[in-house]
Amino acid sequence: MPLMPLPREWDTFLSRANPAVIATIRKDGSPHSVATWYDWHKGRIMLNMDPKRVRLEHIRRDPRVALTVFDKQEWEIHLSLLGRIVEITDDYTLEDIDRLAIRYTRMPFGNRDHGRITAWMEPERWHGWGQDGNLVPR
Amino acid sequence: MPLMPLPREWDTFLSRANPAVIATIRKDGSPHSVATWYDWHKGRIMLNMDPKRVRLEHIRRDPRVALTVFDKQEWEIHLSLLGRIVEITDDYTLEDIDRLAIRYTRMPFGNRDHGRITAWMEPERWHGWGQDGNLVPR
Repeated sequence: MPLMPLPREWDTFLSRANPAVIATIRKDGSPHSVATWYDWHKGRIMLNMDPKRVRLEHIRRDPRVALTVFDKQEWEIHLSLLGRIVEITDDYTLEDIDRLAIRYTRMPFGNRDHGRITAWMEPERWHGWGQDGNLVPR
Repeated sequence: MPLMPLPREWDTFLSRANPAVIATIRKDGSPHSVATWYDWHKGRIMLNMDPKRVRLEHIRRDPRVALTVFDKQEWEIHLSLLGRIVEITDDYTLEDIDRLAIRYTRMPFGNRDHGRITAWMEPERWHGWGQDGNLVPR
């Protein structure tokens, strides 16, 4: 798998509000995966979660994560990133989750009863499957 | 996360040719994720891959995997399964990859130059996000 940075076409791909899956490591070393919203900002992936989600425990214990992103229109196109969580912050103003909710739903986040947690992933490696049906790069 | 079996609505969901992501564990214990075709057959997930794919090394070393499946029409609906690979077989007749290719593309698999490998995942736990926008079960 090639190292970062991403070729420009994949950079554009990530800037769209595409469906994604985050994989984390459970306490016993096995993988966990779940769908997630994300934002792509200056070469980092922004994730945001309810403080009760188990994946928050996972990334606090082991910051290594993988993210796979599908093209929303053509799901044969997808990109995977391997990397690590480099920063975890308290989103007490709900600023980050609102940014994600507006990106994906055009509306601020609905549930404003309790705080959220933001985690920043720094990708290290990537592999993608492009429009011509080939793994990129081969 | 609840144990198997799946409620019937998720069983139906898995029987469709939906986009999915498989997460495996790399040699260093970090997660790897990539998009995959799958089939759902008698409570097991069938996966198939080129013998050169790194995820084959991963599952031979550590059979624990996670799978997240999106509804093809409505991305907001998704299901995740945790489990393990219980059987790896040589698909030398290309029967299994043809079954997947026909399921997803309505055509037999294009590349017939070399063999394929089939891996069967047995799910142990599941969690889903349903049509009403809630994590199921809560």
